[in-house]
Amino acid sequence: MNPNILPNFLKNRAMLTPNRVAIVFKDKRLTFKELYEEAYYRAGVLTASGVTDKAYVGFLVKSDLYTVISLLALQIIGAKAVLLNNRLTVDELVYQLNDARVGFLVTEPVFDLVCKQIRGQMPALNIMGKQDATSYTEPIEKKIIHLADTCTIMYTSGTTGFPKGVIQTYGNHWWSTMGSVLNLGLHEKDAWLCAVPLFHISGYSILIRSIVYGIKLVLHDHFEVDKILRAIEKEKISIMSVVTTMLHKIESAVEKSLPSTFRCMLLGGGPASLDLLNRCMDKGIPVYYSYGMTETSSQIVTLAPEYSTTKIGSCGKALFPAQIKIIDDKGNETSANIPGEIAVYGPNVSQGYLNKGKSSMDGWFHTGDIGYIDSEGFLFVLDRRTDLIISGGENIYPAEVEGVLTAINGIIDAGVVGEKNEEWGEVPVAFVVKEHNVLLTEETILNICKQKLARYKVPKKVYFLSEIPRNASKKILRRKLRN
Amino acid sequence: MNPNILPNFLKNRAMLTPNRVAIVFKDKRLTFKELYEEAYYRAGVLTASGVTDKAYVGFLVKSDLYTVISLLALQIIGAKAVLLNNRLTVDELVYQLNDARVGFLVTEPVFDLVCKQIRGQMPALNIMGKQDATSYTEPIEKKIIHLADTCTIMYTSGTTGFPKGVIQTYGNHWWSTMGSVLNLGLHEKDAWLCAVPLFHISGYSILIRSIVYGIKLVLHDHFEVDKILRAIEKEKISIMSVVTTMLHKIESAVEKSLPSTFRCMLLGGGPASLDLLNRCMDKGIPVYYSYGMTETSSQIVTLAPEYSTTKIGSCGKALFPAQIKIIDDKGNETSANIPGEIAVYGPNVSQGYLNKGKSSMDGWFHTGDIGYIDSEGFLFVLDRRTDLIISGGENIYPAEVEGVLTAINGIIDAGVVGEKNEEWGEVPVAFVVKEHNVLLTEETILNICKQKLARYKVPKKVYFLSEIPRNASKKILRRKLRN
Repeated sequence: MNPNILPNFLKNRAMLTPNRVAIVFKDKRLTFKELYEEAYYRAGVLTASGVTDKAYVGFLVKSDLYTVISLLALQIIGAKAVLLNNRLTVDELVYQLNDARVGFLVTEPVFDLVCKQIRGQMPALNIMGKQDATSYTEPIEKKIIHLADTCTIMYTSGTTGFPKGVIQTYGNHWWSTMGSVLNLGLHEKDAWLCAVPLFHISGYSILIRSIVYGIKLVLHDHFEVDKILRAIEKEKISIMSVVTTMLHKIESAVEKSLPSTFRCMLLGGGPASLDLLNRCMDKGIPVYYSYGMTETSSQIVTLAPEYSTTKIGSCGKALFPAQIKIIDDKGNETSANIPGEIAVYGPNVSQGYLNKGKSSMDGWFHTGDIGYIDSEGFLFVLDRRTDLIISGGENIYPAEVEGVLTAINGIIDAGVVGEKNEEWGEVPVAFVVKEHNVLLTEETILNICKQKLARYKVPKKVYFLSEIPRNASKKILRRKLRN
Repeated sequence: MNPNILPNFLKNRAMLTPNRVAIVFKDKRLTFKELYEEAYYRAGVLTASGVTDKAYVGFLVKSDLYTVISLLALQIIGAKAVLLNNRLTVDELVYQLNDARVGFLVTEPVFDLVCKQIRGQMPALNIMGKQDATSYTEPIEKKIIHLADTCTIMYTSGTTGFPKGVIQTYGNHWWSTMGSVLNLGLHEKDAWLCAVPLFHISGYSILIRSIVYGIKLVLHDHFEVDKILRAIEKEKISIMSVVTTMLHKIESAVEKSLPSTFRCMLLGGGPASLDLLNRCMDKGIPVYYSYGMTETSSQIVTLAPEYSTTKIGSCGKALFPAQIKIIDDKGNETSANIPGEIAVYGPNVSQGYLNKGKSSMDGWFHTGDIGYIDSEGFLFVLDRRTDLIISGGENIYPAEVEGVLTAINGIIDAGVVGEKNEEWGEVPVAFVVKEHNVLLTEETILNICKQKLARYKVPKKVYFLSEIPRNASKKILRRKLRN
């Protein structure tokens, strides 16, 4: 009995509770049996196209039913999904597709123009519409799952500015679902609303949970507050995952309270203001403030509402299977209330990056984020990893934007920082140093950025300086820039 | 991040939710923090007595608060608990203590006489009262758990009649809790009533679950139906584990229905009559009929109440992380509805027996029980493993009783079978063949049995025959005996 072998998640769920509703998308409603049959058929179509268990398959898609079916088809085959942020530019997409050695790209008509440009740079790439079905070959089904096998790859930038593919195994996803259930509980009638992207861990993790838990996933392809509130009522939603900007809109739109069937608003993807958390409390919106990242396969630290008044602003404690600690400059664990770098450990934590080796040597993943743990074990996050800017739930690494800026002819140096913004939490702004006598306007610079960077990464403003403040070892003094 | 390393269960729970009630026993009520502190202190007392992480520590105890504390103290040290059925005779106990190479025995005054006799046979055994505390040494705490490490040993007999120590690792127990939560769910206010022995997997698994789930364990040291019903009301019990005899008494005593907070009656430990299940349904008692054994670290197959009317008599489907199949004489999987031997697989299944190697070669544990799986995947158990008799939730292996009978001077041959009994489900009855001209009464035979066998194993009747019916290969034809 190898403890790291389990039955295929969806196949097993379809066998256990075939008639429960698995997913609702717009006017479509599939049971677990139907979802499995659709995914199995899609696995046959992908097999006919040459996708095997060795393949890394890119996904450039929106969040809808056919994306879910295609993602689950990959699990049947045992192929790996490389989930691409659909807001990236062609250059960014090509970098990730090449880095992950992707041979197949699943996409849809709305991305035709982008795909045409990608094909220009990657002529051998096999691009498939996610609903196309020219031929079918009986798939070789993975009836059992090895938890150590790779399930998904999601890119994250890190401090160097070069995106790295985070390897998420079936085990990482499985243990994440277990950590979550021991904190949030599981009710027979639970229904989870997903209006966050499936290409992010926030969305993909909901998909895994709905299958493992056997609960209904209600999928929205974008966030629209009126539709969300109607869905919560109509579909008897009990849990929803949100980022701060969504919570902000929901709190504003909720007049008195949410329906009594609603029991958990899982808040992730960056800081929330105490003011917002307080207003949610007043309206009885049960916020579970959490901390997590792509490398931890979603939340790893979560505050339960029983502490929402006494520990406001804290992300809570580590989920049951995980551990957290705060380390100082020398790598030693700090005492209670002493800030330092947040390090995490657990079976939900990724073992490393694609083609780049392990993410850590001692088993502890050093997040780069700064925080402290109080005497009762509650984590408070002070600063996101090395100047990470979080805008509407998307991560922006200054180094990546700075790389684009300094590559522009006539720019000598650049620094990017986050500026507080009521709607998005933060937005990036740039400081640049021009060569003498060079004519370079803010508009020109931003136009170049828009070609190279996903829209959300493009600075909202450009300030011209004579010098970027740096310390002795030439690190940008971002605090100084912010002031 | 080794996926098979987790924080110590109790220490972690005490850190996560220190103030939740962990356990209620009579008029005592401890939070998780208090329970951890008590267990930690006890770990120090055991350490002072010489117990290390290498030790196998026997438990000859009743189910009460101090048993729980001592068991959890062993988890802090990393020592292994050998859980002894306290109804066994001295000979049976000594066999198991020797087999497990037990150096320490935790016990209590009510077993003084038995312990004195054990010491007569095992002079080197270190016998400790579970509440004694002569000295204290700071324990070396296992802050993390390796799931592959042994947690408990529980003896089961098997067809040869020689008891074997089932190795249950921390991982087996962990995965059992995960399989259960995905089937039964987890509510914030759950409270689990335990009136089954802690030395059985049925009781020990409740202890593990209450810690991992962070829910209240209400412990009774024996089953008394009036007290049970009062506790369900007063402690707002939501889940209770029962064997058929208990369910029988509860069903009789419940006048109209159980309180609305009660949501799951987990029935294990042998067959239940359709009549009883029907009567429970009439009174709204939500029975989850299950199948499991010591080797599967409690339930592995469980029927959800949503199928209680359509699949009455079935044990349901395998828990999410586990698999079941039916195999024929040649070891091949049978088709739907074709009976054969039940084989099980999963991370909750024991890897083997103490000092006796693996329980199976192909990873599948062959239970010896006979059953079939219908076309929808529901398991129906037809016959328990090789003539196993289940009496009030206790397993009786005919071969073991037959061994005692044939060792009696003047008995040539013997056969033991189960006889249906309204109160106990089954009781053992014996058939013996005496030597010619030997004077041997039923009373004499039973008196000898009482010295050698736990009371529940002693035959209720002895029939004298001239010959035990056997087949060509000399196997007893038990069906013939039953008729």
